[in-house]
Formats: sequence, C-alpha cells, structure tokens
Amino acid sequence: MTASANPRNWDEFCAELGDIETIRDRAQVAKLSQDYNHFSPILQSILQEKIGDVVVRPTSEAEVLKVAQLCVKHRVTLTVRGAGTGNYGQCVPLEGGVILDLSKMNQIRRIEPGVAWVEPGVKLVAIDKQARDMGWELRMVPSTYRMATIGGFIGGGSGGIGSINYGQLRDRGNLHAVRIVTLEDEPQIVELRGDEVQNVNHAYGTNGIITELEIPLAPAYPWAELIVTFDDFMTSAKFGQALGRSDGIIKKLVCICAWPIPSYFAPFRDILPQGKHAALLMVAEPSWEPFQELVKEFGGDICYHKSAQEATKGTAIAEFTWNHTTLHARSSDSSLTYLQTGFPEDPELKLVEHFYHHFGDEVIPHLEFVRSGGNLRPSGLQIVRFTDEARLNEIIRYHEERGAIIFNPHTYILEDGGMKAIDVRQLQFKQKYDPHGLLNPGKMRGWWESQS
Amino acid sequence: MTASANPRNWDEFCAELGDIETIRDRAQVAKLSQDYNHFSPILQSILQEKIGDVVVRPTSEAEVLKVAQLCVKHRVTLTVRGAGTGNYGQCVPLEGGVILDLSKMNQIRRIEPGVAWVEPGVKLVAIDKQARDMGWELRMVPSTYRMATIGGFIGGGSGGIGSINYGQLRDRGNLHAVRIVTLEDEPQIVELRGDEVQNVNHAYGTNGIITELEIPLAPAYPWAELIVTFDDFMTSAKFGQALGRSDGIIKKLVCICAWPIPSYFAPFRDILPQGKHAALLMVAEPSWEPFQELVKEFGGDICYHKSAQEATKGTAIAEFTWNHTTLHARSSDSSLTYLQTGFPEDPELKLVEHFYHHFGDEVIPHLEFVRSGGNLRPSGLQIVRFTDEARLNEIIRYHEERGAIIFNPHTYILEDGGMKAIDVRQLQFKQKYDPHGLLNPGKMRGWWESQS
Repeated sequence: MTASANPRNWDEFCAELGDIETIRDRAQVAKLSQDYNHFSPILQSILQEKIGDVVVRPTSEAEVLKVAQLCVKHRVTLTVRGAGTGNYGQCVPLEGGVILDLSKMNQIRRIEPGVAWVEPGVKLVAIDKQARDMGWELRMVPSTYRMATIGGFIGGGSGGIGSINYGQLRDRGNLHAVRIVTLEDEPQIVELRGDEVQNVNHAYGTNGIITELEIPLAPAYPWAELIVTFDDFMTSAKFGQALGRSDGIIKKLVCICAWPIPSYFAPFRDILPQGKHAALLMVAEPSWEPFQELVKEFGGDICYHKSAQEATKGTAIAEFTWNHTTLHARSSDSSLTYLQTGFPEDPELKLVEHFYHHFGDEVIPHLEFVRSGGNLRPSGLQIVRFTDEARLNEIIRYHEERGAIIFNPHTYILEDGGMKAIDVRQLQFKQKYDPHGLLNPGKMRGWWESQS
Repeated sequence: MTASANPRNWDEFCAELGDIETIRDRAQVAKLSQDYNHFSPILQSILQEKIGDVVVRPTSEAEVLKVAQLCVKHRVTLTVRGAGTGNYGQCVPLEGGVILDLSKMNQIRRIEPGVAWVEPGVKLVAIDKQARDMGWELRMVPSTYRMATIGGFIGGGSGGIGSINYGQLRDRGNLHAVRIVTLEDEPQIVELRGDEVQNVNHAYGTNGIITELEIPLAPAYPWAELIVTFDDFMTSAKFGQALGRSDGIIKKLVCICAWPIPSYFAPFRDILPQGKHAALLMVAEPSWEPFQELVKEFGGDICYHKSAQEATKGTAIAEFTWNHTTLHARSSDSSLTYLQTGFPEDPELKLVEHFYHHFGDEVIPHLEFVRSGGNLRPSGLQIVRFTDEARLNEIIRYHEERGAIIFNPHTYILEDGGMKAIDVRQLQFKQKYDPHGLLNPGKMRGWWESQS
C-alpha cells in the first residue's frame, strides 16, 4: 500500500469532524479507494495499491463545507467519489488523504417537466424511476446506471445510452447548473450556471466538490430491447449507422458487437447464434414497424425482442453495451482489455472495415453510435487482446496514423484520456478555488505543469 | 376557363351520388380548383384558368368508395384536395372532372401516446391541440398548419417546423399507415403499412385516395418563440447551424432570414432593426439558459421572446417561416417569388456565402435548418426577384452547376419538383390501382411516359 502524503494524527482529524461519518477500517478504506480501473492492466498495475487514509461520508452540503474547511486547515488532500464505477482511476487517491464518499447525499430535491434538481450521490436509476412517473427520464446514462451516481457521472463520465440523441454530457445544454464547495482558504459555496458549468464538468473532482446539480431530462418513451444478428460484420455496422441516421425511427441505443463478443454475453448465449455479429438496441415501441422494415432491408435476424413492459424486469440489454461490453468480455477472458476510438464521419465506414480486417482477433470491433456536433458518428470501444504496453501503444499509433482518434482509457490523467488537451478554463478554475492543490492530486496535468 | 376533358351531363352524375354533398356553383368550384400556386408566376400563368366540373364532399370512406365507383364507371377524372395550401398546383385539376374535397372527413379517431389515427381532412392544428393534452404533438408541420389538413400534408407536403428533429415526411417512420380507396374497375379499400406507405406518400393523390392515416407523434415541449438579430448575414447563418448542431439544446425551428426579408414581416416591424438579419426560432423552455450562451457566443441580439404560455395566443412565429416567409414577401412586393435549394453539408457554409454575395438583392437567402439522413443541413427557400422565366432558369442553373440541388417549385409535375426522379414504385402502384389514369391527371410524368 502506498504511504499517504498527508502524515498526521487521523484520530484528531476525525474527532474534529464531529458527527460526520468516517471510516478508518483499512479493508473498507482500500475498497473505497478503487474503481473499475482494472479494466486496464496498465492502470491496475499503477493504481491497485493506492489507498486513502480516511473515508468521510457527509450527508449535507453543510457537512461538505466543514470537511473542506478542515482539509484546507490541515492541508489534507481530498478525493471525491460516487459509486466508483469509472474505469480510469478517476477517484483513486494518488496521495492518500480523505476519500469524500458522497453516496449518502442522495436526495432528489425536485423534478419538473424536463428538469431535475438532485444531490450528487443519487443513483441514476433512482432519478430515472422518479422522472418516468412524470413522463421524463435522464437524457443519457452509462451502462452502470444501476450503481452509478449523478455526481460521479458528471465528474468522470462522458455519455452513454441516449448519446445517440443528445450527444455527450459536455455538450452545451446537457448540464444546467451545479453548486460546488471550494477549497480556498475560506471554503465557500458557489453556484455555476450556463457555460460556467464546464469548469467542473468532467474534471474528475479536481477543482471543486459538486453538492447539487440541475440536470435536463428527456421525454421518456417505452423502450423495447432488441438484438438483431447478421452474418457479416460490415453489414451489422452499416445497419447500425442506418438506424442511427433514420430520423423517423426513435431509438436510444445502437451498439454493434462483432463476433466473438456476443459469445461473452452469458445470459444470451442460447439465443445468439455462433459466429454471428450482433446489434444490441433500444427502440421506441411506436417505431416498431418502420424498424422492422430497416432490419429487412439489411437482412438482419431479430433474435431477441423484449417489450418495454417486460424490460422493467430481468436482464437489461443496456448492461451488455458501452463499458459493460468490456466487463463481460473480461469476465470471460481476463487477458482482454479495450480502447476508445473516435472515427471520422464516413458513410462507407471504411476505417472501421480496415481495422477489422487488419487486426483480426487482436482488436475486435465494438461500436456505439452517438450524435456528435449534430451529426451521427460511430465511436469504438474495441475489445483488445492485451499482450504488453508496447504492443498496445503500437495499436494506438496504428489507429491514429490512419485518422482515428484514440481516447486512451489506459491513463488516469484527465488531459491524456477523453479531453485530449489541457482545458485552460478548468485549470484557471482550480487555481482560483483549490489554490493549495488538495483536490484529487496528480490527475490534472495542467496543474502540475503550471506549478513547476 | 379550360374546358373539361370529361364532357357529360353533370346533373345526372350528381343525381347518382345521392346524398353526398356536391357543389356546382361556378365561382365556388373555381375557388376550390386552386391552391397557392400563385407563389410562382410561371405556375400561375399555366394554372389560373384550370377548373373542375363539380366539387364532391364526402363525409366517410363509404362515400369516397361510392364516388370512386361512379368516376370509374363514367371515366371521370378525380382530383383530391384538402385545404389547398400547397404551392405547386398539386390539387389543381388539369382536365376538369371531380374535385374531391376531403375537408369534411375531419374526425380524429384515436390518439395514444406517440400515435394518432385520423381522417385525412383533419386540420393539423386540431391534431396538435388534442395530442398536446396528452403531452404529444405532430412531429412536423408546415407553416400553414392552422388551415392545412393531414391528408394534404402527406399527399403534397414534405416537411417543415420540426424537420430539424425528425427529417422529412418521406423518411421511414414518419408515416405509419394509410387506408386508401382505389380507382380500379371495382374500387376497393386497401391498407398500407410499413414501407408500403411510400407508394402514396407525397404522390399528389395520383394513385389512391387516402381515407385514414396512422401518424407518429413527438413528445411535446413548451416552445418559446424567439427572434435573434445579427449585423452580419453569415454570422446569422452560422449561428443557425450551430444551434442546429447543439445536441443538448432542444429546438423545433431554426429559420434564418437575410435582410431585407425581416422588413416584410409587418407585425414585427417595430422590433426588427433596419438592416439586420434575423433568426426566427422555437426553442424548448428548459433549454433557455444554454440557448442564451450560444446567442452570446455569436454576438446575437434577442429582440423578441415569447414564452410558451404566451405563444398560445396572438402572432405565431412559425407563420413567418418556411413558405410563409414567401407569402409575406409577396404581400409586400408581388414581383417576388422563390426557390427551394438543398445545400451540401459544409461547416463553413461556403456555397451559401457565395450565392449571397453573387446574387445580391436578386436572390435573398432564407435558410431552414433540417435533419437529413441523420445529419444537419441548411435548406434554402430563397426569395427571388422575378424578371422572366429565362432568367429564373439561369439562376437555377447557376446554383446547380455549383453543387446545390434545386427542388423546383415552378412546376406542377411530381417528378420535376421535390422528387427529382420517377418513383417506379409509385408509378407501378398507379398502374395497378388507377389503371384508367383518372386520378389527378397530368401530374405524374412517369405515367404518361409509360402510356406513350
């Protein structure tokens, strides 16, 4: 286990916290210091020993403020976590200190048509449940929506099921407002609205502690869950693209998995034919007939169809898509890992086809179709047979040299993964509100480069 | 007035119709033989004298069947009309005969979440009114939605307000099913579902009489109505494109009008500044804050803002967009006409800019942003200062030679306007169900070419 960079008398620290719940049990603290970074053998080897000193579980913004005051006073580092369902070590404390577990701040304050006001620790599934009673739902959720919290999703997520309609979380309009607690010499509560939310949106909790969020909602449809199989991979990919581009067919999820990925889906093993490529889909029930016509056009075979009513129970198809695809692959074979890839827009999907043939079984295509800047694009979460880091980097280079963009999931550094560049706004925000660099240290490259 | 190609004793014909309402009054028949083809000086000169022999107003499918039987028996041509709000002479009878006015078949049979079952003569506004009580609305409507009927919109329309979300009427999924009455030797009732609806979708009533429709609906938002002005035309166009591409901002209408078009909008004259270019918009109220950020980014000035609540009364902004833009321009100056243009996808909008500078006041840009094949594109309904047909054709040629597609609104021929090509499916459908060529004669080029 890594030693803390915050050596101190933790008994005294906890005593100063008064009634606020703390956890010191080493096994529990170790567990709450990790997330799903073991998807990456590279991250796992770096992060598996990282551990905080104490887990603090506030139940209110006032308690968060008190924790912040104490951390500033004692110069203790603080790493925020929700459910820990991220894959990039977002919430793994690199320098020990306080793990601020916000899962007890789980109140839904209010839901109105189109908007929800929530605390950060509310599970996504809980927001959806309450919103759907009013005919609304979250615009997008990760495949971990049953466990994941809204604060964690905003702090460390990017998009998911529903991104085919609304793009990414960071797109203007997908996050209305947040309240944060700062780590200045005198911590304060700040409300960010409009474009200002981007200061803390997907910042891994490096520059503020989110204590409340105002989230826009989407009109809820009855979503049928479907699997369509195809003999030929490129036909399945082009079907996915055509469904994505069918403006008159309402859908929420278009996930394409090349064989042998379907073989990793244990609950579907009896219905997924050997050697066939699968499209995992959520389609609005009123679009059922036109959807069938599209399937017919591409020669697909609908081998699984669960009505929206049935879909409220049992296996959820979403839990085989996005990063859950990787999870199931790794459950079946732990030598597998993954990549995240942005493909250029191309009706022919030529680059997808090229990589498919080039890499064979080493890099197995998994595509998620999403909307990006108003247009439809495939994004890849390919399953990769891992040998070593050098070969992984070679695979990444091969992709990038041919015009694909790799959002590297094998780094815990904010700018080296999804962001691809230092966000000057987020850096300046940290300089103002976390001047001592206590929040999630070691994650924001811009910060330490500006300090040296 | 053009003589009928159906010389007969119309008294006897009407007597055979029994209780079905007929109109023989020449002035009334003349009025019900026209539409808004006077938008085009070319169409007007061809069509203004065209007149039917008798208007027949059935109130049920059974009555439509009886009219069809009688027309087949006597080889009388039959031209269907709704409210006559089309601009291409779709419902003008070229060879006299029966005008089948379906405006009395105006029952909404049933509305369920996401789907409406309606008769063809229901006004679009009436469907919207009833659907909105359940949280739904039509996916797209033309600017004539207060007068236009759903049958007319499907038979002769293409898209409109809402197309920025759902594409065109002809996109798979935007029309679920229709029932038609045929004009075979023994007319029958046929139900078309799935892709089969495309046989009669946008066929100008040339191959069947629509008697019932199953129409998918969209979730209804509270739509705020807004006008934003800009000093520079290209900034207004790029703002429109950026709003269209903002996947997180919910909108229903993005219409950009170059100066002097805003000067034609009498009710807005006091608020629209001289010389400024205007964006006419419908934006969902929950997206108000992110929308303001986008306006700020482009340096726009919000000079008109009507809440969704206020928008239920008074001037509707939609009635200044799409073909209503042309209507207001012509009210101000009857020498103006228009074109319809498809632009290639281009983030820089270079072709839009080129035409703007090239034509000056002769062709004034009016853009409507729509979704097409999953991507966002501007479509042009430019206001054109008409001199003569030769110059108009020169303007069309200039556009086409540079990669824009002109959907010529100065023709009444189905294939020469929006369709751009003979639809073999629609032609075969006519050959089967209207073997004597009685339905809306002279409109389908494929038909008469196949007969000669």
